[in-house]
Amino acid sequence: MSEPLFDYLLRLGDERLVLGHRLSEWCGHGPILEEDIALANIALDLIGQANLLLGLAGEVEGKGRDADALAYLRDAREFRNHPLAELPNGDYAFTMVRLFLLSAHAYCVLDGLRSSSHQELAGIAAKAFKETTYHVRHSAEWLVRFGDGSEESRRRVGTALEEAWRWTGTLFLADVVDQELQARGLAPDPAAAAPAWRALVDAVLERATLPPPSAAPLSGRGYRRGDHTEHLGHLLAEMQVLARTHPGAEW
Amino acid sequence: MSEPLFDYLLRLGDERLVLGHRLSEWCGHGPILEEDIALANIALDLIGQANLLLGLAGEVEGKGRDADALAYLRDAREFRNHPLAELPNGDYAFTMVRLFLLSAHAYCVLDGLRSSSHQELAGIAAKAFKETTYHVRHSAEWLVRFGDGSEESRRRVGTALEEAWRWTGTLFLADVVDQELQARGLAPDPAAAAPAWRALVDAVLERATLPPPSAAPLSGRGYRRGDHTEHLGHLLAEMQVLARTHPGAEW
Repeated sequence: MSEPLFDYLLRLGDERLVLGHRLSEWCGHGPILEEDIALANIALDLIGQANLLLGLAGEVEGKGRDADALAYLRDAREFRNHPLAELPNGDYAFTMVRLFLLSAHAYCVLDGLRSSSHQELAGIAAKAFKETTYHVRHSAEWLVRFGDGSEESRRRVGTALEEAWRWTGTLFLADVVDQELQARGLAPDPAAAAPAWRALVDAVLERATLPPPSAAPLSGRGYRRGDHTEHLGHLLAEMQVLARTHPGAEW
Repeated sequence: MSEPLFDYLLRLGDERLVLGHRLSEWCGHGPILEEDIALANIALDLIGQANLLLGLAGEVEGKGRDADALAYLRDAREFRNHPLAELPNGDYAFTMVRLFLLSAHAYCVLDGLRSSSHQELAGIAAKAFKETTYHVRHSAEWLVRFGDGSEESRRRVGTALEEAWRWTGTLFLADVVDQELQARGLAPDPAAAAPAWRALVDAVLERATLPPPSAAPLSGRGYRRGDHTEHLGHLLAEMQVLARTHPGAEW
């Protein structure tokens, strides 16, 4: 078994890398310039956070892998992101619902992680927390605009919410890695963040005049062993092609 | 004939929109996370500048078109960017050479434009000038790294430079629009920026230990009447598809 802190950092880093890549797919394709810029900025925040987290993961592992090696030279089975991050963007409503649910989750987790006894991790969490505050606000505003908007936008955001909701059942899953980190004062209990997350989600759904989702959440936790949807493989193929075509390229 | 200031703003705005879109195509595809982030940040700067310039263009035109309408609802023949901005990215060397040549050009033009008698334009120019300073520096560093790097990187950047150089012959072209703006104190003489540009380019090529390009520059100025390479049409098709599929969509 590898060092639990390494696994933990991969989970945080991979989720941001994968979600950031998904958001970057909108770059230059949105229907509104301002929003294109906002979404690309969020993608950049997430990729920047991933860079820091994977860089630290590489140091903790101590095998000479840096952030780039971890980002570009691992296969899908070695990725530890939550599957909600890897699903295709779908329409703009799904993109925003997914961003909101995961940003709200990150917000609640990072809040506690800022007090980690690991100084570097606490510093990254503090920086990421600030950025995530904006991601939550931005995506929440879109949910409200969709839910309280036209009939079409309301229908779409409702569908997106039900679809995304199925994947939220395992967001606060605690396993041996989490227990070990909690015991060492490195990270908070994941389950402790769940009530804050639910309260945040409920408040935004109410503002958006949307009913609480009724879809039954999936319980599969295989992603922590590397079982991912087929979508992650395609995403990585696209993301990694250049680095793998020119292994060790100096430029 | 339309208001010369409108034409002038389209030229500045379109160049940034098109180049920004090209750079955004690298987003999530680079071989190095840090560089991916840097390039995406430059793309965002450019798209942000385009948003301001096209917004002002729409106000000057006075027909109710905003930045989004100008970005997403014009055909290739109505675009006024320089053709160097619309060429495909090619390899990383060409992307960086093109970015350097156009950023250096923008730097020299914006320097004078900051003194425009048009207060809003002067303000946009001042903001863009600051951002462009960084774009010049970043792309110049890559040219030096390529030129003074491996045999392969040196060969590639040399090829890219010759290829891009052919398009630089019309960068400082002055026509009736420029003359009219100069006469009204709205913009500097484009030709006045040429010596500074050449000096900047020469200095960076010398640092990169690259010989001055020998390719004969093309002289076609048709792009100012809307004659573009086939590449712009493809770029716009991709960039505009969403906005055109949902005309007037509120979300």
